Amino acid sequence: MATRMQDRAHSAESEDEEAFVYIFDRRKGDAPEQKIPTGGLFNFENFHSKLAEHFDLDEGENYVITTTNREPIFDDDTWDLVDNGETLYLLRAVDQDLPAQAQERVNYLPHYDTIVKGGMYEYYASEGQNPLPYAFAELIDNALAATANNVGSRQIEIRLHFDDVTPSKSVVLVVDNGKGMSSRQLNNWAIYRLSKFIRKDQRGKLVPGEEIEPSSVDTPQVPRSLNSDISYFGVGGKQAIFFIGSSTRMITKPRESKDVHELTISKEEFERKEKNKEAIYSGYIRNRKPGDVSHIPAEEETIRQLIEEELGKTSFTAVAIQGINPQHIPYLKGNLTQWTRQLAHIYHYYIHGPNGNQKHGDSKTRAPSPFMNIDIQVKVYTKGNSVPKQIDLRDIEDDMQTLFIRTAASTFEFKASVEGMGRVEGVMRYHPFLYERETYPPDVNMTFFEADIEDEHDYAIDIRPARGKRPIFECYWNGRLIPYTTVEEFEWCSAPKKSKQIYVPTECYNRVSGVLFTNDQFQVSTNKLTFLDLEMKLRDKNTAFSRISGTQEKRTQIEKDFFAWLKECHEQCDKQVRFSGFKGVVTRLDL
Amino acid sequence: MATRMQDRAHSAESEDEEAFVYIFDRRKGDAPEQKIPTGGLFNFENFHSKLAEHFDLDEGENYVITTTNREPIFDDDTWDLVDNGETLYLLRAVDQDLPAQAQERVNYLPHYDTIVKGGMYEYYASEGQNPLPYAFAELIDNALAATANNVGSRQIEIRLHFDDVTPSKSVVLVVDNGKGMSSRQLNNWAIYRLSKFIRKDQRGKLVPGEEIEPSSVDTPQVPRSLNSDISYFGVGGKQAIFFIGSSTRMITKPRESKDVHELTISKEEFERKEKNKEAIYSGYIRNRKPGDVSHIPAEEETIRQLIEEELGKTSFTAVAIQGINPQHIPYLKGNLTQWTRQLAHIYHYYIHGPNGNQKHGDSKTRAPSPFMNIDIQVKVYTKGNSVPKQIDLRDIEDDMQTLFIRTAASTFEFKASVEGMGRVEGVMRYHPFLYERETYPPDVNMTFFEADIEDEHDYAIDIRPARGKRPIFECYWNGRLIPYTTVEEFEWCSAPKKSKQIYVPTECYNRVSGVLFTNDQFQVSTNKLTFLDLEMKLRDKNTAFSRISGTQEKRTQIEKDFFAWLKECHEQCDKQVRFSGFKGVVTRLDL
Ligand SMILES: Nc1ncnc2c1ncn2[C@@H]1O[C@H](COP(=O)(O)OP(=O)(O)OP(=O)(O)O)[C@@H](O)[C@H]1O
Ligand SMILES: Nc1ncnc2c1ncn2[C@@H]1O[C@H](COP(=O)(O)OP(=O)(O)OP(=O)(O)O)[C@@H](O)[C@H]1O
Ligand SMILES: [Mg+2]
Ligand SMILES: [Mg+2]
Repeated sequence: MATRMQDRAHSAESEDEEAFVYIFDRRKGDAPEQKIPTGGLFNFENFHSKLAEHFDLDEGENYVITTTNREPIFDDDTWDLVDNGETLYLLRAVDQDLPAQAQERVNYLPHYDTIVKGGMYEYYASEGQNPLPYAFAELIDNALAATANNVGSRQIEIRLHFDDVTPSKSVVLVVDNGKGMSSRQLNNWAIYRLSKFIRKDQRGKLVPGEEIEPSSVDTPQVPRSLNSDISYFGVGGKQAIFFIGSSTRMITKPRESKDVHELTISKEEFERKEKNKEAIYSGYIRNRKPGDVSHIPAEEETIRQLIEEELGKTSFTAVAIQGINPQHIPYLKGNLTQWTRQLAHIYHYYIHGPNGNQKHGDSKTRAPSPFMNIDIQVKVYTKGNSVPKQIDLRDIEDDMQTLFIRTAASTFEFKASVEGMGRVEGVMRYHPFLYERETYPPDVNMTFFEADIEDEHDYAIDIRPARGKRPIFECYWNGRLIPYTTVEEFEWCSAPKKSKQIYVPTECYNRVSGVLFTNDQFQVSTNKLTFLDLEMKLRDKNTAFSRISGTQEKRTQIEKDFFAWLKECHEQCDKQVRFSGFKGVVTRLDL
Repeated sequence: MATRMQDRAHSAESEDEEAFVYIFDRRKGDAPEQKIPTGGLFNFENFHSKLAEHFDLDEGENYVITTTNREPIFDDDTWDLVDNGETLYLLRAVDQDLPAQAQERVNYLPHYDTIVKGGMYEYYASEGQNPLPYAFAELIDNALAATANNVGSRQIEIRLHFDDVTPSKSVVLVVDNGKGMSSRQLNNWAIYRLSKFIRKDQRGKLVPGEEIEPSSVDTPQVPRSLNSDISYFGVGGKQAIFFIGSSTRMITKPRESKDVHELTISKEEFERKEKNKEAIYSGYIRNRKPGDVSHIPAEEETIRQLIEEELGKTSFTAVAIQGINPQHIPYLKGNLTQWTRQLAHIYHYYIHGPNGNQKHGDSKTRAPSPFMNIDIQVKVYTKGNSVPKQIDLRDIEDDMQTLFIRTAASTFEFKASVEGMGRVEGVMRYHPFLYERETYPPDVNMTFFEADIEDEHDYAIDIRPARGKRPIFECYWNGRLIPYTTVEEFEWCSAPKKSKQIYVPTECYNRVSGVLFTNDQFQVSTNKLTFLDLEMKLRDKNTAFSRISGTQEKRTQIEKDFFAWLKECHEQCDKQVRFSGFKGVVTRLDL
């Protein structure tokens, strides 16, 4: 039989026979420590006699028992503070020198806030945005990875069950029909920082990428790096869950399994275990047949219904989050449009395919996604209403990427090869000026736009045409948006600072939007909000850019190609040149 | 005697008598699990017989032993894979339904990458900057907190010992003469996420702010919030250390203690413990008399010397980092000026006092810092050279804050009161235009500045006067810079978008720099690189701004005050108005 590491509490209450202290006799000499059993020693006098016997202590002799911080142990009160397994000194005097070194055993198990508070500082968002969509994104990442090899549809549902009467009873569910987890995998799920790259099989061998099946590993050429491979650090799900609420019940069943596996981790349980001095990181996986609700109290209807659904499923994972942070509820309810739009933006290319959400002429059917079959839905249940309010992310038409795609008059595709295996695909889009109006979509998060333009007396010339000060590129990693990293521009697509032969008005450079798609050779932060090395690698002198035209890679200078494209865009698509807020002849009086 | 939680490994090798498995007899019924000792069962046959006896199994009967994932255990190979403490089933058939639920014990101790890789993604820096200064800052934070109540000088030294022959033997030391740690505090230091707010004393009572002594708690009015209270999350030191290297030896001695306490944590040790199935989060604190080097091999000269210094100290903490990441060495050596400048910037107000690094007329002595006494030094030792290269952060004169302070012609101080206890002090500085040249200091990290201005043929009007596109405010939290959060401007100090009575050229708004100083009522991320809620709170409608003039708070409208100040600055300090890159009369031909 093999052995496996354990984190078990040794509680003197339950295992008194194991109680002991270590004693270093450091009156003189360098004798090794002695392990003194302390079971049954109920007061200091008992302990003292035992020591006197063990170390042959004389009545008349000068000695003192202290902690390693030299606090004397001399009565029941001081003895009470000694921990099981603690190291003590036997000394001539409290402040004598140590004649030899003394090593004491210590434990430094990470505090459970590692799990419970992990997400608290990870999923913040700047500029007054709400970070919740980014927490949900971690759970969607996991579901995308789990469904990557589904044969039929890939269904991912975020279900919000609001309880208006008792808000604290609200439940958030994230349910997918992916491959599920075995009980060992479910155990691994709970291990903080156990990334797939360091998971070991039962023989202790590394199983790197246990979760990735060959199909996705062997196809680095998947367009836009839409490889569904977005599980990296072993922290995402846990951090997201404890950002959203205070407790989670993971329920899962792999295809091959007869049984459903269930594991609950909660802040309250951690607190209880700490209080009772139980092992913090131990718990139970419940194995049961599908649909068995015998362990769920009748009032937890939502969970019971969820379990009853299991009967119709071959494999699945359901994350049931409870103890929802009450601060989140008004936002989740009141800003549904906003945060679902943000999710549609993050997963735009997963839900719409490599070309994104294009308009499809007359046909009102959805854009086909040939190599995927992803449905991400948000369902909002309110008590009393049996029919949920339902939003399919694929139906959202006002996320930034959809706006960019639909206002584009022309696109320019390119590729960047970065040293090593780094691959970046790029798309740029031209949003022309049409009869008195820029078609570049305004930032959905901004509101101060388009004000005051009529005012003749504008003195402080506030030119915000088209893109304005926004950077050109949004960046996707393995097909999903990394929201806080943007790339301003490249050398080859920036407005020339000086040039004597310009054929394109500077304004045109401001009518370009863009997207970068990287593979996983670029690093992102553990919260998947920023890239770590993208800009640096792109700026490296060995990074080579080339235009992609059709499926062909063109070996000309990208700067020329871009300029030619921009010129063509301007000449063919712009209907009038406009200089916003600045018309006619101005004579500067103040010179 | 009290008990305390432990993380101990149960290795069958050493404690065979404790080996066991749990068996659920789920052929039918819902009997609880049975704990079956497995010590001395050396093969499957032994185990099988034991089970047959225990559960009264008949030869002719149909039954199978499986794991909870329904993998049958039927021979020595499959039995070998069973872990100590694992849960097994006794079933009629491998694929029968479970007649009742079965709960198996699992452990989910955080992987040691929690500590070892914590910093890897935390201390990245954007825009091609190197993140190392931010890692050092965490160690300086700790040293500032530890020295806060020193009576005399507060000495903080970063010592770099480069070994050119064997770079892997290089050592980084961070040494302070602060209050040190008891062995229990040293143990607590190692506990990931054990913030000071949740530390418990030996009686299990919370000791919030154990580390903060009353003096600093009771003085919220300390100028610029320079309270030395920058230990918050229980992660900083550990993350920084393992970002810099792969091993640390913490050596510390509190004033009251006769002994020095030493704790080593290293990646290699974690790996060894994992391999040998030992308890991951257990180790030894070495207690010894000051100067005792008996445990350090002769070749580790740097460590021996460090220990020998102990004899002259009453209290101290030394962090000795080894296994320095080889990628860091060229940067640490080659960019010394740059990263020490960055540290001088981060701790500017700690090292120079609330008014910063002002020029002091004739006197070449250092600016006095009346209520602090902080010396932060960087010493670089190279083998063979006994005299280190030494930089005192207080002597650095080209960090951004020094540049801002020394080019300022006038300052404008204000205060923001945020709901609750949030206090923000603000300083704005005017950098005038002097005879053909802006005095606003260029960004030390930028280089593209001031190019091409002479070119008459500039067409793309690239106006980068004074501040340019940079935001106005850098932000300090408890007196130390939070480098990635800047505040663009406030409503009341931004160039008016339309205004009929303007007396100040727009350009003047661009000659203002600023600093915000917040207290700890604002949240920062665990890596102390960004604020979480500063902008949001500042924009709150209940946030009140007022000018501070002398020591007086003025109750007039800040917008008016600011405008008056700006006007005065312009009229008294600017020597000529300049509009960069745009002179005379321009007629736009392209309209
Ligand atoms: N919906 C799911 N279906 C199947 N397995 C899952 C699911 N969610 C999580 N897992 C498993 O649990 C593991 C841990 O998930 P978690 O999100 O905490 O970290 P991660 O995905 O490994 O890394 P990251 O930090 O990048 O999210 C995953 O690697 C995966 O093996
Ligand atoms: N130089 C030092 N002198 C004395 N005590 C120290 C020193 N460095 C660390 N400590 C102690 O160790 C604890 C842990 O330090 P660490 O930097 O890992 O986390 P923290 O400072 O508590 O929180 P943060 O994550 O904000 O840094 C500190 O709270 C402090 O009590
Ligand atoms: Mg994940
Ligand atoms: Mg710290």
